[in-house]
Amino acid sequence: MPIPTALDLTRDVVTLTADLCDIASVSTQERALADAVEAALLTLPHLDVIRDGNVVVARTELGRSERVVLAGHLDTVPLTDPPNIPVRRVDGTLVGRGTTDMKGGVAVQLALAARVPSPSRDVTFIFYDCEEIEEEFNGLKRIGEQQPDLLDAEFAVLLEPTNGGIEGGCKGTLRVDVVTKGISAHSARPWNGHNAIHDAGDVLARLTAYEPATVHVDGLDYHEALNAVGIRGGIAGNVIPDVCTVSVNYRFAPDKSAEEALAHVQQVFSGFDVTLGDCAIGARPGLDQPAAQAFVEALGLPVVAKEGWTDVARFAALDIPAVNFGPGDPNLAHTDDERCPEQQIEDALAALTRWLA
Amino acid sequence: MPIPTALDLTRDVVTLTADLCDIASVSTQERALADAVEAALLTLPHLDVIRDGNVVVARTELGRSERVVLAGHLDTVPLTDPPNIPVRRVDGTLVGRGTTDMKGGVAVQLALAARVPSPSRDVTFIFYDCEEIEEEFNGLKRIGEQQPDLLDAEFAVLLEPTNGGIEGGCKGTLRVDVVTKGISAHSARPWNGHNAIHDAGDVLARLTAYEPATVHVDGLDYHEALNAVGIRGGIAGNVIPDVCTVSVNYRFAPDKSAEEALAHVQQVFSGFDVTLGDCAIGARPGLDQPAAQAFVEALGLPVVAKEGWTDVARFAALDIPAVNFGPGDPNLAHTDDERCPEQQIEDALAALTRWLA
Repeated sequence: MPIPTALDLTRDVVTLTADLCDIASVSTQERALADAVEAALLTLPHLDVIRDGNVVVARTELGRSERVVLAGHLDTVPLTDPPNIPVRRVDGTLVGRGTTDMKGGVAVQLALAARVPSPSRDVTFIFYDCEEIEEEFNGLKRIGEQQPDLLDAEFAVLLEPTNGGIEGGCKGTLRVDVVTKGISAHSARPWNGHNAIHDAGDVLARLTAYEPATVHVDGLDYHEALNAVGIRGGIAGNVIPDVCTVSVNYRFAPDKSAEEALAHVQQVFSGFDVTLGDCAIGARPGLDQPAAQAFVEALGLPVVAKEGWTDVARFAALDIPAVNFGPGDPNLAHTDDERCPEQQIEDALAALTRWLA
Repeated sequence: MPIPTALDLTRDVVTLTADLCDIASVSTQERALADAVEAALLTLPHLDVIRDGNVVVARTELGRSERVVLAGHLDTVPLTDPPNIPVRRVDGTLVGRGTTDMKGGVAVQLALAARVPSPSRDVTFIFYDCEEIEEEFNGLKRIGEQQPDLLDAEFAVLLEPTNGGIEGGCKGTLRVDVVTKGISAHSARPWNGHNAIHDAGDVLARLTAYEPATVHVDGLDYHEALNAVGIRGGIAGNVIPDVCTVSVNYRFAPDKSAEEALAHVQQVFSGFDVTLGDCAIGARPGLDQPAAQAFVEALGLPVVAKEGWTDVARFAALDIPAVNFGPGDPNLAHTDDERCPEQQIEDALAALTRWLA
C-alpha cells in the first residue's frame, strides 16, 4: 500500500483544493486520496471516522436535535494528456483536473470539518468514490444500500459545482425504447412489406407536438422534457426495414414516482411498443421543511431548481431533502479547460460556515 | 493454370445445368468455369469466341439483318456450409448453389449455342463474372465500358431467373441521405439545443404521405417507390442529438434519367439537405420495337414489368432494349434452399429455340 500523501487541513481552502487536485484520483483509483482524507480526519478528535472501501464518513456526535449531511465525491474523470496537474493558479483562478468537479467542494467539506468542531447541528461528512462512471460502482449508492443509517439526516447538501448558487433537488430521468415493427421486403417491391421507419414518423410527430410541463415542487419550478436521444433502423440500402427503435429520454419533476413517469410516457406513446430502459427518480428540494429553510436563510443566496439528475436523488430515495451547492461552473466539468475561481471556493466555505457555526 | 473441367454441351440441358453448378464459381473465383465454358464454345465452328478476363463472348457472324444478345453471369454467391454441391436431383427439382441464380440460364445459353448453329438472327452469347458483388467488379459493366461493340445488338435477353415468365426492362434505383441538423445539449436542459431527430419527423411524414406513381413505359406498368431504408441519429442517452440521417431509396420508372430522378427526390424533400448516394437508371423494355415484339410473339408468354434493378440496365445504357427471362424462382436466389424445377430449364430452352431456330 502506498504511503498516503499528507493533507494539512489548516491551510487556506484554495491551497487545500490544490493539494487535493494534485493527488490524482481518477474513478476506481481513489485509494491514495481516500487514505489521505481518512488520515487527516482521524487527527480531528470531535469526529467519528468510518472507512468503507474508498468511502470515508466522518460524523459529529454532539446530540444536536438535527443532523445534516455534506457529501462530495473524490473521483475525477480521466486526466488530460498531458496531465494538467499539479494545478496552476492563474489570475485568481485554479486551473486543472478536479478544480471544478469537485475538489473545491471536497476542500470546503474538509475545511468545515477542521474549523467548526462544534457545529450548530450534527454533521455527517461523506467522501465517496466512483461518481463519474457506471452507477453500479458509485460509492454513495453502495453506502445507501448497505448502511443507510450512515446517510440518515434531516437534510443533505451535495457539494457538486453550482457556480456558487443553490440548486434544489433534481429532476428524474427515464429512458425507454419506442419500437415500431414492420415486414422486410425488397425496396423495389415495397408492397410485399411494411416500412417500420415510416411508422416511426408518428413517434417523432408526438415528440414534436409534446408540450412539456413546468412543475412547482416545494417552492421551485422544474422544467420537464421529453426528447428522442437516439433512433436507428435499416438493414441494407435495398431492403424495407422491419424494425425501427426510437430511444426517448423523459426528464421529470421530483413529484413523480418511477411508475408515474413510465405511465406518462406510455400514455404519450399509446399504441406503440414501449420498453423501459433505465429510470432514476428525482429529488425534492424540501424547501418547505425547517432544515432546508434554515440552510437557505443562513446562506442568503437565491435558489433555483436543479434540472440535471445528480446524486442528491440518493438522499431523496431515503426521504431526505437535498440541495446542490458548490464552487465551480458545471459547464466546465469534464472539459480539458477545467478551472475554478478561487473566490467561489472561499465564498462557499464562508456561506456554509455561517450555517454551521 | 488448372486444367479446365470439360463440359459436354450435347448432354440434356438439366444435366448440363448440374455440371455447371458442380464447378464452383463464387464471385472472383470464376476462372475454372470460364475456362470450361470457353473450351466448350471453341469446339463450335460457327462461333467466334472472345475471352477477356473471366468474360467469355461467343458470336455468330451470319450476316443476319438483326443481332440479339443472350447474357448470363457465371458467378454465384458463397457456397453453403457445408456446400450443397454437387447438386442433387430431387423429385424433378435440381437442388444446390447456382441452380436458380443462374446456372440454369447459363445452361440454356450453352445449349442454344450448340444446338442452333444457324439462328434466325445473329446471336451474341455473353458469359460474365462478378455479378453478385460490388458493381465495380462486374464483368458486363467492364465490357460495356471498354468494348461496347461486343454488346451491340437490336435486343438483349438476360437469363436471370424470372420463374419462366418475361419481365421487361427494369426500374432505376437512387439513394440519397436526407440530413437534419440540430444543436447538441444536455437532455435535462433541451432548451439550450435543438433536436435533429425530432426534425426528421417531417422527413418521415413526407415519406408516409408520398403517393408513388405507376408509369406506363413501352407497354408495361412500372410501380415506383420511395422508402426510408435507414435512419440513424443520437450521441448518448443524455444528449440532445445534433444530426439525424434518413437514407432514402427511390425506385423509378425507366422513362426517367438520373437527373430527373434526383430532381424529383429533391422536390419531395425541399427545404432539407439532400446528399446523393448512388444512382443507376432503369431499362426500357422496348416492347414497341420489332425485335422485342418478335421475341414476345415467338415465346407466347405474358410480359410484366421488372420491378427490381438488374443488369438489363447496362444494355439500356447503350440504347438496347432488354428483357429478363430465365428458369428459377428469384425468391430462392441466394438462399441456402436454392433449387430449380427441371421443367423450367427445359421450357426456357424450348421457348428460346422457338425464337432463334
